[in-house]
Amino acid sequence: MQDHPQTYASATPSLVSFTGQLQGEWTIRSMETLTGASLPIAQALHVASADALAGPVSWRLTAFTSNLRYTTAAEASMLQARQSGLGRSEAVHGALIPIQKNAAWWALAQDERREIYQERSRHTSIGAEYLPQIARRLHHCRDLGGPFDFLTWFEFAPEHEPLFDQMLARMRASEEWRYIDREIDIRVVRNAA
Amino acid sequence: MQDHPQTYASATPSLVSFTGQLQGEWTIRSMETLTGASLPIAQALHVASADALAGPVSWRLTAFTSNLRYTTAAEASMLQARQSGLGRSEAVHGALIPIQKNAAWWALAQDERREIYQERSRHTSIGAEYLPQIARRLHHCRDLGGPFDFLTWFEFAPEHEPLFDQMLARMRASEEWRYIDREIDIRVVRNAA
Repeated sequence: MQDHPQTYASATPSLVSFTGQLQGEWTIRSMETLTGASLPIAQALHVASADALAGPVSWRLTAFTSNLRYTTAAEASMLQARQSGLGRSEAVHGALIPIQKNAAWWALAQDERREIYQERSRHTSIGAEYLPQIARRLHHCRDLGGPFDFLTWFEFAPEHEPLFDQMLARMRASEEWRYIDREIDIRVVRNAA
Repeated sequence: MQDHPQTYASATPSLVSFTGQLQGEWTIRSMETLTGASLPIAQALHVASADALAGPVSWRLTAFTSNLRYTTAAEASMLQARQSGLGRSEAVHGALIPIQKNAAWWALAQDERREIYQERSRHTSIGAEYLPQIARRLHHCRDLGGPFDFLTWFEFAPEHEPLFDQMLARMRASEEWRYIDREIDIRVVRNAA
């Protein structure tokens, strides 16, 4: 998934846990497994920077924000100018999309991955078309040894869900997605405060 | 430090711990702190893929091998053709060099870091000149939240130590090294089996 432009200015790694459980700030609306094994059923999603969480847990996925991996300075500037942050009051719909890429992807050199990611699949360019409506934050977990490589978190207003679906359909039709072995699309709605 | 060419073909993350302790397979010959804070004194270095280690420990640094971050396919092929592996019987001298880069480095976009790393500092090219005499393996730890960003492990025959020193002197004179906030040079000798 796309490097988050906010890490361009603040690239300090920060651990984030996404936990599927009985209760939480986000209610799970749907969970669709597109490729590979699914996750256990959960009712709510809790997003926290610490991992001191109470209550029964169905699953917990932990990952870190990090420095940019493919994004150029020109792309980062363009994204920064367009993007919106997390936590907007109108963005009460969220999506967590855990992704695992296959061994063939990771065996590629940096220039080969960049070529597929942006030059041929237009990952950064497609994502940018949906800014500022679709806010996102990318988290890495491949190097933590877990089952997924990336967790991408999205926030948007309910009326922009068709835009979000259109963006995903374009990404999923790209060459980059041929390297994806597991993908789960978890849609949530923020509970009233 | 340089991406290890062996990860071009086998990019599965693997955790490695480097432990400073009283006894171990490598005796510490010297420990020179070039920049930033030092590490506690230790007599021996233990290198292990597991972390079930016995005995009193002075320090433990854990990091992971990973996919290539800057190396292109052409560079990786060149390195693969020249490189030597770890564990050569004649390579009884080793060096562990933990490095921390500063916030300015990590705030750069991917193309800006690549430009400094190779196009201006010739990191890959300089390292390649010292193959196959100087074997190396790069480990990442920035995203684990530890004090260092990289641990690079080198193995070479005693007669090639002047070559190794020359390589380090050239790297340390490069523009890339202006972004280094902490560097410790730990030299070890393998104990007789």
